[in-house]
Amino acid sequence: MSAKRCVGAQSICFAEDIYVLGRAAVVGKKEGNGPLRSFFDEIDETDLFGGENWNDAESRMMQKAAAMAIRKAGLTPKQIRLLFAGDLLGQLLASSFGAGEMPIPFLGVYGACSTMGESLLLASMAVGGGFADCAAAVTSSHFASAEKEFRFPLGYGNQRPLAATWTVTGSGALVVGDKTALERSRTQAEESESVRKERGGVQVVISGGTIGRVTDYGVKDKANMGACMAPAAAAVVEAHLQDFQRKPEDYDKIITGDLGKVGAEIFADLLGQKGYRVESVQEDCGLLIYDNELQDTHSGGSGCGCSAVTLAGYLLDKLYEGEFQRILFVPTGALLSPVSANEGSTIPGIAHAVVLERKKGGN
Amino acid sequence: MSAKRCVGAQSICFAEDIYVLGRAAVVGKKEGNGPLRSFFDEIDETDLFGGENWNDAESRMMQKAAAMAIRKAGLTPKQIRLLFAGDLLGQLLASSFGAGEMPIPFLGVYGACSTMGESLLLASMAVGGGFADCAAAVTSSHFASAEKEFRFPLGYGNQRPLAATWTVTGSGALVVGDKTALERSRTQAEESESVRKERGGVQVVISGGTIGRVTDYGVKDKANMGACMAPAAAAVVEAHLQDFQRKPEDYDKIITGDLGKVGAEIFADLLGQKGYRVESVQEDCGLLIYDNELQDTHSGGSGCGCSAVTLAGYLLDKLYEGEFQRILFVPTGALLSPVSANEGSTIPGIAHAVVLERKKGGN
Repeated sequence: MSAKRCVGAQSICFAEDIYVLGRAAVVGKKEGNGPLRSFFDEIDETDLFGGENWNDAESRMMQKAAAMAIRKAGLTPKQIRLLFAGDLLGQLLASSFGAGEMPIPFLGVYGACSTMGESLLLASMAVGGGFADCAAAVTSSHFASAEKEFRFPLGYGNQRPLAATWTVTGSGALVVGDKTALERSRTQAEESESVRKERGGVQVVISGGTIGRVTDYGVKDKANMGACMAPAAAAVVEAHLQDFQRKPEDYDKIITGDLGKVGAEIFADLLGQKGYRVESVQEDCGLLIYDNELQDTHSGGSGCGCSAVTLAGYLLDKLYEGEFQRILFVPTGALLSPVSANEGSTIPGIAHAVVLERKKGGN
Repeated sequence: MSAKRCVGAQSICFAEDIYVLGRAAVVGKKEGNGPLRSFFDEIDETDLFGGENWNDAESRMMQKAAAMAIRKAGLTPKQIRLLFAGDLLGQLLASSFGAGEMPIPFLGVYGACSTMGESLLLASMAVGGGFADCAAAVTSSHFASAEKEFRFPLGYGNQRPLAATWTVTGSGALVVGDKTALERSRTQAEESESVRKERGGVQVVISGGTIGRVTDYGVKDKANMGACMAPAAAAVVEAHLQDFQRKPEDYDKIITGDLGKVGAEIFADLLGQKGYRVESVQEDCGLLIYDNELQDTHSGGSGCGCSAVTLAGYLLDKLYEGEFQRILFVPTGALLSPVSANEGSTIPGIAHAVVLERKKGGN
């Protein structure tokens, strides 16, 4: 065990810098009409992305995001050594079919809406451990495929309670790599992300993270997933701050995945009980992505794509621009399945935390 | 990029030994009546494992296997730094609920029946990369929950074509660790796996692997998954042999996951076309686990549990005993979902290869 890479009880850090080499956020119409519009790379007004049905649409959206992030990294798909991807659908339908079009060794991951945290940490670990010079992390969700999977097909026109969140139609992709990959990215691409940002001498690095445990407070309401996930998010942030011996203020932002209004309050309360005041730095991707009043999205956005596109678009922009120096990205997942929900089971939550930092001077 | 850890186009190897510290195979009645009976740690004649329904049964089976492997490693759950687990059910129902009972940071993975290959490689990479001193890889499948998920509830009594495989009710768990963890395992356990085996001075190590790509030959027959997966298995074995510059005879056995009779023939044919004769070293977990004539299992066993229990039971026994010195374990997965199958989509396959070696003298 390299002491440098294990931190505390459940955290890891990277001895050498893991660079964000490329990123892309591809979304649907509703997301394109929301407050983060200008941060997305592509908006499909049809939500179909050229697909024949909703899961096909999601696969194509995921492919678009992955291909764009790789292109923006100045790399070709064959130069990506590993692809970590996941989505909300049973048997990772969208990712499996999406990955099938790419000549990249594929590892499917599932952590419900926390999947971007999981895939980004695993991609970074693969690079940090020396098993890949660069790797991609891609996740997706689609409102229509998720409604069909977990609730009702859209045609039913069912009503939604106010605690419910709205599944984001979007796919976010990040390519991460080591110094060698960064150099290659610089050499190969004229207009690559790394080159463009490098003009300002700025890189964003993934410097560590905390892997969450499954946390179950016994909540059974699948229309209130924020409440199901908030305990897991609070637990992983508490573990993170303890492991790294940091305070909430050591981050410009602590951004949860998709707790929504209801969940975000519970999250802050739970951390408050442990002596951590997070309100001043707290954000939630689910609350950033829509205008909940104007867009009728109730408690906010959710889905694997929610935190993924918010990170790949908005959060990384703010890091590159210098508005944020260091953030803690905490995607949150509700581990329910249609079967478990119909059987009346509780909905356990999980969350993982990833530290992203702005670095001036590149290396 | 550490040149030592990246091999060829899609393979990895471990600079330091990754030891198998503990292992357990828990199965149902049919598996307990099969030829590998004596290699399993626990057989539940009810197939329910104390659960209330089939997915609950699978969660409990998975917990049993994980707990037993950890105990046999001479460790406690809190000493396991990471748990990689997956199953066949939508949203990893069995693993998510199973992991919820364990105080271990959890990363859900999905590769259909290849999941043991994926989780074992990721656990080994986490250890080899210095992010964990020890990690567990656990996968499960259950005949009754899989039939309900993918085909028909058991009560329907549907007929099965001869190319169909029988989903194994079983969960296999491995705990892997570095030298520090091996020492701790030796110290803490009197009857631990490592101690028991150490009497003969023998350890089994994971020395490398090859990560597969999604491979789709356009087969659509979900009752013939061997044919869907064989191209992926052949492709990953070919890549492995090229990356490591080895011949099939460099392995005592090349053991695919669950190609079954039909798939195993296609696998050998495809590799034969590439100039690799594997027949003399080829085995298939799906053909080992049942007596297909006596047990009416048609083309053989399948499911995440099939390769997992065959590895945790039979294959590791043979390695410790010295009948095998080095094997290539190649779990194979068919990336179909009930939705994709009903939509008439093709069934892409994936497979990952893991090298396990017997090592005399421990270090």
